Amino acid sequence: MKSDTTASDLSALRRRLSDHLRVVPDFPSAGILFQDLCGVLAVPSLVHDIAEAMVAGFRHEFDRVVAVEARGFVLGTAVAQIAGRPLVLARKKGKLPGPVHSVEYGLEYGTAVLEMQQEALRAGERALVVDDVLATGGTLEATAELIRHDGADVTGHAVVLDIGALEGVRRLAPDRVLSILTV
Amino acid sequence: MKSDTTASDLSALRRRLSDHLRVVPDFPSAGILFQDLCGVLAVPSLVHDIAEAMVAGFRHEFDRVVAVEARGFVLGTAVAQIAGRPLVLARKKGKLPGPVHSVEYGLEYGTAVLEMQQEALRAGERALVVDDVLATGGTLEATAELIRHDGADVTGHAVVLDIGALEGVRRLAPDRVLSILTV
Repeated sequence: MKSDTTASDLSALRRRLSDHLRVVPDFPSAGILFQDLCGVLAVPSLVHDIAEAMVAGFRHEFDRVVAVEARGFVLGTAVAQIAGRPLVLARKKGKLPGPVHSVEYGLEYGTAVLEMQQEALRAGERALVVDDVLATGGTLEATAELIRHDGADVTGHAVVLDIGALEGVRRLAPDRVLSILTV
Repeated sequence: MKSDTTASDLSALRRRLSDHLRVVPDFPSAGILFQDLCGVLAVPSLVHDIAEAMVAGFRHEFDRVVAVEARGFVLGTAVAQIAGRPLVLARKKGKLPGPVHSVEYGLEYGTAVLEMQQEALRAGERALVVDDVLATGGTLEATAELIRHDGADVTGHAVVLDIGALEGVRRLAPDRVLSILTV
C-alpha cells in the first residue's frame, strides 16, 4: 500500500473520475444538477483508488470510518477495508436499533434526522466521515455532531465530489474536508 | 486470494459471525426480532472474510455485483472490490437518475418499488445479488426481476444471514442462495 498520494497521482485520478461522472439536469427535482456516480462504481479499480487516496489523504490517522447513508456506504466500506478500520453507519431516523444518538438538521425544505448507535464510538477515538457528494454540508455537519456527542473526535470528511458553489467546506470548517474533485 | 473456501473455514467464519451478531426484539416494530449486523461491520477482517466467502462460493462466476439498498451496499462493495467486478446499485424509488427499470413488490403491509439503471447490465451478463439479510425474499426477488429485464442472468444471491423460518430460499428458487449463516 502506498503511504501517500502524489499530486500527479491525484491529477490522474481526477481525470479518470471526471470521465465516469454523469451530470443529470433537474434530478431529483427541477433546477438541481445531479452528479451521478454510478459510472464510477462500475470501475472497481477507480473505486479502490479513490478510497486509497482518501486513506492516504488522512495518513491513516483515524480509528473508525463513519459512512453516511446511503451512497456513503459504498466508499465508506472501501475506505474501511483498505485502512483496516471498523465501519460505523450514520443512518436516517428509525433504521438503527438502539440505543442511538439523534440529530435533527435542516434541509432545503424541512428537516431530517440522522442517527448513530451510542456504543459505536468511544471518547477520544478519531473518526473519518465518508460520503459521496458534499453539497451544503448539512448532513456531514450532523454526522460530526453525532461523532462528538460522547467525546470522539472528527479527523475530517472525505468526499468524492465537492459542489464548490454551495460552500459546504466553509460550513464544515474548521473540520478538514478532502474532496477528490471539486465541481 | 483463495480460490475456494473449505467447510472448516466456513464453520470458523460462522462462529466469528455469531459472536458479533446482536438480536434486538421488537425492532423496528412489535414482534420482529431484528438482526443487528453493526457489530460485524466493526471488525474489518470479518467483513473481508464474509465477502471473500461469497466470491469463492460463486467461484468468481459473475460479471457484476448488484447491491441492494441500503445495507447491501456494504457487503456488495466488499464483494465487488475483492472480485474486481463493477458494482450496480438496486435502489428505492426515485433515488437513481434515469432511465431506470422499476419493479413494484409486496411487503408485509403495502408495497415498495425498487429501481435499477437501464444501462447497468447488458444481455447475457451474469449478476450476483448481495444483501445483508434474507427474510421473506421479496426484495431479492424484485432485484432478480430487474436484472432479467433486459436479458441479463442471475448467478445467485449472497446474504450474510438467512432467516430460515421465513422460507426466502424457497421463494427465490431455482435461483441459488448462499448465506453465511442461517438463523
